[in-house]
Amino acid sequence: MSKRFAVVLAAGKGTRMKSKLYKVLHPVLGKPMVQHVVDQLKSLKLASITTVVGFGAEKVQEQLGEDSNYVIQEEQLGTGHAVLQAEKYLKDQKGTTLVVCGDTPLLTAETLQSVLQFHEKEEAKVTILTAHSENPAGYGRIVRNENNQVEKIVEEKDASSEEKLIKEINTGTYCFDNELLFQALKQVSNDNAQGEYYLPDVIEIAQQQQEKVLAFQTEDFNETIGVNDRIALSQAETIMKQRINNYHMRNGVTLIDPANTYIGADVKIASDVVIYPGCVINGETEIEEDAQIGPNSEITDCHIGSNTKVKHSAATSSYIGERVQIGPFAHIRPDANIGNDVKIGNFVEVKKSKIYNGSKVSHLSYIGDAEVGSNVNIGCGTITVNYDGKNKFLTKIEDDAFIGCNANLIAPVTIGKGALIAAGSTISEDVPGDALSIERSKQVNKEGYAKKYK
Amino acid sequence: MSKRFAVVLAAGKGTRMKSKLYKVLHPVLGKPMVQHVVDQLKSLKLASITTVVGFGAEKVQEQLGEDSNYVIQEEQLGTGHAVLQAEKYLKDQKGTTLVVCGDTPLLTAETLQSVLQFHEKEEAKVTILTAHSENPAGYGRIVRNENNQVEKIVEEKDASSEEKLIKEINTGTYCFDNELLFQALKQVSNDNAQGEYYLPDVIEIAQQQQEKVLAFQTEDFNETIGVNDRIALSQAETIMKQRINNYHMRNGVTLIDPANTYIGADVKIASDVVIYPGCVINGETEIEEDAQIGPNSEITDCHIGSNTKVKHSAATSSYIGERVQIGPFAHIRPDANIGNDVKIGNFVEVKKSKIYNGSKVSHLSYIGDAEVGSNVNIGCGTITVNYDGKNKFLTKIEDDAFIGCNANLIAPVTIGKGALIAAGSTISEDVPGDALSIERSKQVNKEGYAKKYK
Amino acid sequence: MSKRFAVVLAAGKGTRMKSKLYKVLHPVLGKPMVQHVVDQLKSLKLASITTVVGFGAEKVQEQLGEDSNYVIQEEQLGTGHAVLQAEKYLKDQKGTTLVVCGDTPLLTAETLQSVLQFHEKEEAKVTILTAHSENPAGYGRIVRNENNQVEKIVEEKDASSEEKLIKEINTGTYCFDNELLFQALKQVSNDNAQGEYYLPDVIEIAQQQQEKVLAFQTEDFNETIGVNDRIALSQAETIMKQRINNYHMRNGVTLIDPANTYIGADVKIASDVVIYPGCVINGETEIEEDAQIGPNSEITDCHIGSNTKVKHSAATSSYIGERVQIGPFAHIRPDANIGNDVKIGNFVEVKKSKIYNGSKVSHLSYIGDAEVGSNVNIGCGTITVNYDGKNKFLTKIEDDAFIGCNANLIAPVTIGKGALIAAGSTISEDVPGDALSIERSKQVNKEGYAKKYK
Repeated sequence: MSKRFAVVLAAGKGTRMKSKLYKVLHPVLGKPMVQHVVDQLKSLKLASITTVVGFGAEKVQEQLGEDSNYVIQEEQLGTGHAVLQAEKYLKDQKGTTLVVCGDTPLLTAETLQSVLQFHEKEEAKVTILTAHSENPAGYGRIVRNENNQVEKIVEEKDASSEEKLIKEINTGTYCFDNELLFQALKQVSNDNAQGEYYLPDVIEIAQQQQEKVLAFQTEDFNETIGVNDRIALSQAETIMKQRINNYHMRNGVTLIDPANTYIGADVKIASDVVIYPGCVINGETEIEEDAQIGPNSEITDCHIGSNTKVKHSAATSSYIGERVQIGPFAHIRPDANIGNDVKIGNFVEVKKSKIYNGSKVSHLSYIGDAEVGSNVNIGCGTITVNYDGKNKFLTKIEDDAFIGCNANLIAPVTIGKGALIAAGSTISEDVPGDALSIERSKQVNKEGYAKKYK
Repeated sequence: MSKRFAVVLAAGKGTRMKSKLYKVLHPVLGKPMVQHVVDQLKSLKLASITTVVGFGAEKVQEQLGEDSNYVIQEEQLGTGHAVLQAEKYLKDQKGTTLVVCGDTPLLTAETLQSVLQFHEKEEAKVTILTAHSENPAGYGRIVRNENNQVEKIVEEKDASSEEKLIKEINTGTYCFDNELLFQALKQVSNDNAQGEYYLPDVIEIAQQQQEKVLAFQTEDFNETIGVNDRIALSQAETIMKQRINNYHMRNGVTLIDPANTYIGADVKIASDVVIYPGCVINGETEIEEDAQIGPNSEITDCHIGSNTKVKHSAATSSYIGERVQIGPFAHIRPDANIGNDVKIGNFVEVKKSKIYNGSKVSHLSYIGDAEVGSNVNIGCGTITVNYDGKNKFLTKIEDDAFIGCNANLIAPVTIGKGALIAAGSTISEDVPGDALSIERSKQVNKEGYAKKYK
Repeated sequence: MSKRFAVVLAAGKGTRMKSKLYKVLHPVLGKPMVQHVVDQLKSLKLASITTVVGFGAEKVQEQLGEDSNYVIQEEQLGTGHAVLQAEKYLKDQKGTTLVVCGDTPLLTAETLQSVLQFHEKEEAKVTILTAHSENPAGYGRIVRNENNQVEKIVEEKDASSEEKLIKEINTGTYCFDNELLFQALKQVSNDNAQGEYYLPDVIEIAQQQQEKVLAFQTEDFNETIGVNDRIALSQAETIMKQRINNYHMRNGVTLIDPANTYIGADVKIASDVVIYPGCVINGETEIEEDAQIGPNSEITDCHIGSNTKVKHSAATSSYIGERVQIGPFAHIRPDANIGNDVKIGNFVEVKKSKIYNGSKVSHLSYIGDAEVGSNVNIGCGTITVNYDGKNKFLTKIEDDAFIGCNANLIAPVTIGKGALIAAGSTISEDVPGDALSIERSKQVNKEGYAKKYK
């Protein structure tokens, strides 16, 4: 196999995005478009990837890191000019160069692999990745000759009415013989209305040299969508969402409504998980068998154990065990570590706390900077008072403790094993194991007073 | 009318579901697929329904109960073999036998009735339920002869290129003359690549006997979808959702976005109800006129009175009266019984409690195991302390009482009519009517102390 | 330019809506259908708008106010009869009269302007607004003659099989020469099956008089949809939603899923705002640059400052500053005025309160009728006790104060600058600046008691 290279075109400003963010950095399912492209290229094991950066160069480099070489296109003088900047890394190399746009986040490694293999097997000098479009208006059409080779690419504005009927369109992704590419790029002129150097002009030059120019038509038009505005961005998001959701459904995950389920590319979900509508699941989340998520929940970077249920809740960067009930309307903040058979009920917030097996925090509580043993019952309205305005302190509640409702546990404080805190008590000193602790005044009933008052 | 029987094929494992749950038990809009099929069959008043079970036999029988007879197909030897198991119940019976798959949850009684009537009126021996498919690839095609009778069913792999253009497809649902069916099944052989006994072979046998074999084409292809994987399951869910939602819209219910509204098959909704997006409404829920539900609410097995509003909330197994405001972010747990003109505000949980007309629980409260009279005002943060770690006790709040904020009412306790509880009080003893009850210490201001402390 | 008039047909009952609300008053994206129509007409600067009202006349007049003249059609005797009622305002006027239905909320001023200009330029006496429909069944078809003028409109039931193939349909919107209109209406008879006076009969009369009758075909069939039942209402809602969402996306707003984002017609959104799925944004809401909204949030009539994030929350009629964090699960009620860099965390309700820059209300609190200074920290579970059962009172918390958890601030009360409130305290008297205030009893630990108790 000859050597393979890639050039990623990522210098464009993307005016129609109307954004401060550089076009190729706009995320699709949480990952910048150009990262999607480079991730697919990386899986192809190429000799090198060179990204042509321009607008937002630094931010693009920061995003991609060492996955790519970089060359800078100082002025936006056209796609031919952009590729030419990569000469620094690719000049005189023998092999095939794949040129791909940084704004085509849906292209798959499989398709790129197919066009590369076709190009090499057919010993072409240029192969254009094409697609079939039912509504080709606006795209360059592929005119093939009697040998099925490419005669030319006709832009919409130059197309005859017959050519306009052609439904095979140019996707803007190409394989080139690397030597031919850079030799031809030198001959490309900017003698046109826009005064730009166009990459497709290389094709004409190759044809003048009697070289083989082919087209490889991919099956899925959607893969080749280029994102130039936010409408296309939302379409790319929708298509990638379908792709990911179909993957999970084929693996045995039930999605009640895949159109209304938003799962990031790196989420792992075991079989027989059921996801109800309105869920946004992102990051490095992992969901074990038979868990039930949603409706209307948002989960980021969490482990969710088997048979756990999360309803109408938000959870971030936390570990949640098996057979846990979360919500409805619970908020699990970063660094919660929740054991098995735990209940985190409605209007409960947990932050940076460890809760051991079988404990219950059923309602209206805040557990922050705490360590809660097993089989603890935290009454409704209980608060770990972890902050004194300057520092945060730890609350420790040992196994089998029972905390009455609306209690304040002023950290640092330890509630001993099996201790009992009376409802409404503010506890500022440690409570020994098996003790009852109470902070309360005497109830006084003033008869008739309410009547008078009203 | 001759006798009618049904055989439901429910023995398949459904490998492509990748599930521990047997295929026909996967729910569509909350009801197992095979139950949808049997429910439609039941409405046809057949002489008997026989379900052929295999994988998960017990669970399927448990689901369907006495709605069906059962026969077991021990080995998966093909659809012909499956139907043959029903001989125990159907042998020598005169009449028509409808054979239907347990994984076609969208078939309607109307369509089944139509094919039965057609079959009987035409005095056919076999009638195949067919559908028109724009993309028939993969389906068996119906080849009709010059008399419009069925000549044969051609499977995709055996079809000529001409036959592949046929868009009338076999849905896998059939009417048979019962005697012919079981006589012919004895002749079906397993002399084929898979070594299986195929039900459609009965058709060929009937034709050899010069019997009349017809096809009845239903209008709606979607009805005939068979669910073999979770992608098809989600499609069935979507189609049934549309069907149900269209039914409610035709009845005068406004669904702001039917694509994003999930209503179970047994939910009843009166006219002029408005349902906002993101709602999941299930079970035996009944919603009265002019109620407004959502957005983003989940309601299961509830009665919702007229003019009541439920926003961003979850409610289960409860009765909610008229002109009630629920939410946003309220949680009504089982056995709540809420009167008219009540307010259940944000971050309020109600469980197993009765709340009479005109009372307000506006914020951050837990009302559990309580009886709240009429015109009671429950202050923010109030908690009915119903659990002492061993038992649950009742809180009784009589009419016109006013409970101050962050109060704890330690059950069992009664707050008398018109009584007033001071904010922040923990009440552990009964409060007489019209009394003011207070449990509080003296406020002490330590001047300058905060400055020093900081 | 000759004078232009409009007649809006809004007298129909809309039986198929099955509603107590008059058909044209059903809202699409929160605005009654007839108001959408009249708003578009208003932007055309017509000489007059006359609305024909019947069922629900008063309510329609109340809705439209002085935007229109009104005439009453007492009996529903057909569209011709309806227009004739407008004679009172239009008789003998020279110019063009646009007749439009009150149940076509998607018609745009641009399209109406185009048909008016076409009508006037062509010097037609009648111009029918038509559309191309791929499924024209049920619509009146436009039969054009060899001069491309309209020969006739054929209703479905009267159409020959050839005419049924015509895909140009009558939208029910017309331009008429005003004098011809009212002269011809006098000749229209009700000699037909329904006994109604039909407006399209005017066309035949014009043709008998050798007048020019033209058709103007608009590009977008969807614009011309008439809403006769709730299914069509939901379709109109979906189309208008797409229209609005595309507008915002073109302006540089990222909508993760436009199909699941519900933005009212009058909402203003700056570029680089990101809106996650499941949001309902209505009224006079204005969202500044780089804000992030959702998922699953509902915002009505709010100002949201730049870089502010609102997650899983509801907000109404409030001002929210820059870099504010709201939610998840927060509720901002009317008349909240929230400064910059404020945090309103989970399970927090704010009502009719001013919160100055840099303050935090992180969890489980109610801030109502309060003025909270800058850099105040409100502990978890804090409640402003603003209501004594009779009146509401103000809580004032000055800059830099620190309120301990589960505190009750019984209004009217002032917490001085830099003061510190101990957790669990109920504060009923003013606290001077820099003071520590505490209301608490002594904690008592009863050793071994819990063991005995259990």
